[in-house]
Amino acid sequence: MSIVSKAAAIGGGVIGAGWVARLLLNGIDVSIYDPDPEASRKVSEVMKGARRAYKQMVPGGLPKEGKLTFAKTIAEAVHDVDFIQESVPERLDLKHRVLAEIDLHAPANAIVGSSTSGIKPTDMQVAMKKHPERLVVGHPFNPVYLLPLVEIVGGEQTFPEAIEVAKEIYASIGMKPVVIRKEIEAFVGDRLLEAAWREALWLIKDGICTVEELDDIMRYSFGLRWAQMGMFQVYRVAGGEAGMRHFMAQFGPCLKWPWTKLMDVPEFNDELVDLIATQSDDQSDKWSIRELEKIRDDNLVAIMEALSKQNKGKGWGAGELHNDYTKQLAKLAAKKPKASKSAEKAKATKAVKAKAEKPKKKKKG
Amino acid sequence: MSIVSKAAAIGGGVIGAGWVARLLLNGIDVSIYDPDPEASRKVSEVMKGARRAYKQMVPGGLPKEGKLTFAKTIAEAVHDVDFIQESVPERLDLKHRVLAEIDLHAPANAIVGSSTSGIKPTDMQVAMKKHPERLVVGHPFNPVYLLPLVEIVGGEQTFPEAIEVAKEIYASIGMKPVVIRKEIEAFVGDRLLEAAWREALWLIKDGICTVEELDDIMRYSFGLRWAQMGMFQVYRVAGGEAGMRHFMAQFGPCLKWPWTKLMDVPEFNDELVDLIATQSDDQSDKWSIRELEKIRDDNLVAIMEALSKQNKGKGWGAGELHNDYTKQLAKLAAKKPKASKSAEKAKATKAVKAKAEKPKKKKKG
Repeated sequence: MSIVSKAAAIGGGVIGAGWVARLLLNGIDVSIYDPDPEASRKVSEVMKGARRAYKQMVPGGLPKEGKLTFAKTIAEAVHDVDFIQESVPERLDLKHRVLAEIDLHAPANAIVGSSTSGIKPTDMQVAMKKHPERLVVGHPFNPVYLLPLVEIVGGEQTFPEAIEVAKEIYASIGMKPVVIRKEIEAFVGDRLLEAAWREALWLIKDGICTVEELDDIMRYSFGLRWAQMGMFQVYRVAGGEAGMRHFMAQFGPCLKWPWTKLMDVPEFNDELVDLIATQSDDQSDKWSIRELEKIRDDNLVAIMEALSKQNKGKGWGAGELHNDYTKQLAKLAAKKPKASKSAEKAKATKAVKAKAEKPKKKKKG
Repeated sequence: MSIVSKAAAIGGGVIGAGWVARLLLNGIDVSIYDPDPEASRKVSEVMKGARRAYKQMVPGGLPKEGKLTFAKTIAEAVHDVDFIQESVPERLDLKHRVLAEIDLHAPANAIVGSSTSGIKPTDMQVAMKKHPERLVVGHPFNPVYLLPLVEIVGGEQTFPEAIEVAKEIYASIGMKPVVIRKEIEAFVGDRLLEAAWREALWLIKDGICTVEELDDIMRYSFGLRWAQMGMFQVYRVAGGEAGMRHFMAQFGPCLKWPWTKLMDVPEFNDELVDLIATQSDDQSDKWSIRELEKIRDDNLVAIMEALSKQNKGKGWGAGELHNDYTKQLAKLAAKKPKASKSAEKAKATKAVKAKAEKPKKKKKG
């Protein structure tokens, strides 16, 4: 069950709206701030998709959704919540402005998570004059309402207790929190993605393959592997009876061969953008983005469900978590509404507050 | 139905044995050459795993397996086959020796596929004095009996017709052939894998995360995405209503940020090998390699089956192919053995021969 009583979402783009959807579908009230006049429509589109996916995941009926309110200012959005997720565009000046505002108006014990895909929390929390110690990066993956991973990164001023509470909050809404051990830009997931993305741009630019061919090469081979085991475990198995050391010994030297073009960054000019956009149209314009979203979501739910039945029914990887999460949602749906719910919320909020206050005390002490 | 009457496998390691398993389970006779005294045991281990996976895929019963014979020489293995798959270790001198031998003794119209993960076919076919035009790279992904992708690459001397026949042969045993447009080292799949692998080595070496954490970061996020859509289609959807151009415009500039360490190759010393092997033990030594193989195979079959039910039952990506392949295997299993089978084989062989002879004629003409 969630330990958050009310949350705020600052920014309602693809990522922000994904957070809103995950929170609401867990029965948590959310106040959102987004200056885009289209925000309400965009969020409701994402909610539609998320609701559709969750109905497949929990066919017995979903929990009562949290209430969504649109705030006119950041102050209004955050003043009475115990968790805030910031998902504004990736510009440090903007992050500073928004985080300063959040910090000024949020309750002192509210945890602040940032969805940034790459900016270091240390560089962001300098803008928080009151309680920088409660900022963590909570970097999700799109679609946020379905993909479980959230990378948690603390900055120099972040208290370990804030990281602990953030872990609990994210886990309570069905996610898999992984705490990154050292703060670096782009963290871990996006480092790997950027590496593959750069190489992919070269392959397209040089005419080795089209975007459709490259996508097929991924999804008919290692994509299937990585849905269930990461690269190290995959390679351990590939080493055969001799295992990991054998694999490393065999493939290590390849690193010295002049294969990849990683050393350079392809020039990101109009020509390359055109080439990719045109090839992407050839590949996908038979579907609208909304149709593709549905296809993607259906596939993701089906994959997680398939994995949930593995390992003698215990589930494997994302499938094991999927088992727990869908059970939790079903249990929440079966709950009597009103009284018991608000009582539990009051209890939970207290717990979060107690925890969140701990770092503050420590700082003073 | 397969258009190959009899095949040869040269090399019976993890990849070679995977080919043997796929071929035999498609009812194709295979002669294998591998000087390793343990080869027979190793191949039969892989066969056990493959048989187990295929029984899940085709619960109504498998086709009659092809006959496996161990040859004492390459000449003996290849003299009467119409398709040869070479899977010896990645050393050019060894590839030259083996391909020269294959070329010398194989029927003139037999297609030769190489499993190399990176060596250019142009650099390999120079060793084939008789018929270099029939060499293609047919680069598979482990486990070969389950993962459908095969990258086909022709060299300077390869005839287009040989590529066409190779495509048909691989497709006939349930694979997804993708022809690479220009010959480069490591082709496409391994370029992407190497990029991610290098970055992963840095992340481990620098203590940002452990191999288990990195694996979790992959398999709870983009690994799930890439099992069903490749990165370009994923990003198209992520662009939201604005699509691919929006995504490119938004994320393009990040390429200039000094995030990844791709520019350098981490030194591949004993310390790094130890660190990774130790962390890999921590992650996985509760399972033997054989157990992990079973888990992996079960997961892969389950994912492909889940995808086969998507898209209104037509299947999506590897799932669509999985539908066709399992239907084909079931049909083959339902066939009366003997007479009808050998008649069809004779017919099919004739067709392959006609096609394979075409390039030869062209060369002479």
